[in-house]
Amino acid sequence: MAAAFRPGLPEAATTTGDRPPFSFVGGHNDVDNVPFSGLAEAALTALRRDGRDMAYYNLGGSALGHEPLRQFVASSMTSRAGMATSLDEILITSGSLQALDLVNDLLLEPGDTVVVEQATYGGTLSRLAARGVQWVGVDLDDQGIIPESLAATLDGLADSGVKPKFLYTIPTVQNPTGTVLPLERRRAILDIVAEHGVAIFEDECYADLTWGCERPPTLRALDAGAGHVIYCGSFSKSIAPALRVGYLIADPPVIAQMLALKTDAGTGALEQLSLAEYAPANFDAHVENLMQALQVKCNAMVSAVEAEFGSVAEVRPPDGGIYIWVTFPEGTDTTALAPAAAAAGVEYTPGAGWSASEADGARRLRLCFGHVDVDTIQAGITALAQVFRDNTDLPLP
Amino acid sequence: MAAAFRPGLPEAATTTGDRPPFSFVGGHNDVDNVPFSGLAEAALTALRRDGRDMAYYNLGGSALGHEPLRQFVASSMTSRAGMATSLDEILITSGSLQALDLVNDLLLEPGDTVVVEQATYGGTLSRLAARGVQWVGVDLDDQGIIPESLAATLDGLADSGVKPKFLYTIPTVQNPTGTVLPLERRRAILDIVAEHGVAIFEDECYADLTWGCERPPTLRALDAGAGHVIYCGSFSKSIAPALRVGYLIADPPVIAQMLALKTDAGTGALEQLSLAEYAPANFDAHVENLMQALQVKCNAMVSAVEAEFGSVAEVRPPDGGIYIWVTFPEGTDTTALAPAAAAAGVEYTPGAGWSASEADGARRLRLCFGHVDVDTIQAGITALAQVFRDNTDLPLP
Repeated sequence: MAAAFRPGLPEAATTTGDRPPFSFVGGHNDVDNVPFSGLAEAALTALRRDGRDMAYYNLGGSALGHEPLRQFVASSMTSRAGMATSLDEILITSGSLQALDLVNDLLLEPGDTVVVEQATYGGTLSRLAARGVQWVGVDLDDQGIIPESLAATLDGLADSGVKPKFLYTIPTVQNPTGTVLPLERRRAILDIVAEHGVAIFEDECYADLTWGCERPPTLRALDAGAGHVIYCGSFSKSIAPALRVGYLIADPPVIAQMLALKTDAGTGALEQLSLAEYAPANFDAHVENLMQALQVKCNAMVSAVEAEFGSVAEVRPPDGGIYIWVTFPEGTDTTALAPAAAAAGVEYTPGAGWSASEADGARRLRLCFGHVDVDTIQAGITALAQVFRDNTDLPLP
Repeated sequence: MAAAFRPGLPEAATTTGDRPPFSFVGGHNDVDNVPFSGLAEAALTALRRDGRDMAYYNLGGSALGHEPLRQFVASSMTSRAGMATSLDEILITSGSLQALDLVNDLLLEPGDTVVVEQATYGGTLSRLAARGVQWVGVDLDDQGIIPESLAATLDGLADSGVKPKFLYTIPTVQNPTGTVLPLERRRAILDIVAEHGVAIFEDECYADLTWGCERPPTLRALDAGAGHVIYCGSFSKSIAPALRVGYLIADPPVIAQMLALKTDAGTGALEQLSLAEYAPANFDAHVENLMQALQVKCNAMVSAVEAEFGSVAEVRPPDGGIYIWVTFPEGTDTTALAPAAAAAGVEYTPGAGWSASEADGARRLRLCFGHVDVDTIQAGITALAQVFRDNTDLPLP
């Protein structure tokens, strides 16, 4: 069979699900705050009422997704994200990763260029690379994209005759930096991309977990019907990662075109039915509880890094989410240190694969605290510090 | 945004889920035989026991899929399909359509050639077309692929210097013809493809609904570890189409390579948990009940076609499944008749898009009986016959 494989395949995947003792990678969440009991009751209620609809693809309704779930997304977007949304602007997806694939499939060809944030979601970069798409990074600070850097980047590309297909941005609880882009920057960025005729792909997978500040309106809301923005969100971070439900929000013709690329005959009905039954009465309160638990772990991780690494590590408490982004002095290579860390039972995400420039990312790493408890965080950061002591000349305390 | 769309997109999709009065298309199933109550109880049990695992991607286990579900697939393959299967040979997919996409992505490049059955699943042909892949059809009779035609086709391709990437075949409850390939032909086909070094993609989505004969062992079982066959199956037809759970079975290195192409971070956990809880004790009995209901409707549809169309329509009672394949005299164009049928409230699948040769398929159509009741079948076939009387010169009774 291997003789029939096409060229250019990615490396074969690991088929085991093992986690080391100090697993600080992946988008897992707090085990004590999965609303499984509420979902179970919701599944029972929804199936007893609507179960016969399962005889039909898409529960007999629109391929855009279960209508009560789209209603919840619409109302949640209005109340939580300042974005009035109609049902035909919403496409329910099998997690936000399918949403990424659909947007990329809609807009990209090999040789295209995309503008990304200097530090960004690694899964997006690997997807772009797999499609033969180049990217250019825009500088970030503690508030997110620096508008002047975006303008300079777009001007520079225009001077080189390159028209980027879109700006991929995570404005709210940026991944991996955990920043939230303020309102005035949102407006500035919209002005800049409009001037250059560049679309925006706004990924707000973590935005429901914003605690460091008020959640600003989305770029799509501020774009006010101008049609420059495709938005995506997810229930993976607010409800459970194993629940594979995300959503795309865009103008109806864009949604209808992406639907034609969604070749899976619908997102799982049990996931949609249960979530649509559970969410309206319970989502907001659940997310409040979840965020309280996450903040405790976040504080524990930031404190542990500060205590163990001292001035060697630069870390900013994130404004939400489930991870921190740590920067070490120039010359540090977190990819090279990963095997030693693994030998000590510590797994982290090296920054090189999560940065527009590998060189810029090499001295950084991402640590997730969503699924680990405070004791594990403390012990794991202690173990990680020892790895740095044993393998670098950095002046740890 | 439309200015940023890539070239070569398919037509935008319809976003409504409306069905006409006489809807004989799609893979929908019998509304009275969706085991929603059993699934609901199973969801409750599974979530109460394992719900915390939903905090982790892939429920904290292998990305191949929920292990108890893979165990059920393995045991079901052994008992129902004569195919001993180990857990690392199974990849749970988000429906069998994702399985098709994964196999195509593993093996195909633009310009490649695939061998298909002369009448075959339209979704496969449209997927091949979208990838710029050509196909060649092999002749079928009332037992399925004619081995001599396969041998001649492969010889002819070899003479032209073309090495096809694989044979796509639906040996058990062929779609759309409803035939079941006998054991001796299975062996003959394996010999022929082995001689030509061609792989097989064996799609058995409907095989659990075999009632016209004993279900033979799969091609993959008969290949006996030689590694020529990738197999796919589904729970869409046996449990519910809205439940998006299918599976691929292949040698472990092939599975690990396809897993790297599965970019959705896992198939829905609620679907997997519920099905794994429900299936072991209930699947076989449920499928027996479902098949009894389907046979009644199948007989009603075959009888109605025979009564309304007489010798104008050639129809063979299928050996299982949820559809019949009807052939009309040369010169009939079922694509051209579709608008008139739609005006009469009848929707069917024209044969042109479900045939390796559109010319061969033009005089055929597929009618699904899974989700319609006997009265609707009778009334709809009567209406369809009237469409033929009003729009053709065919000598209907």
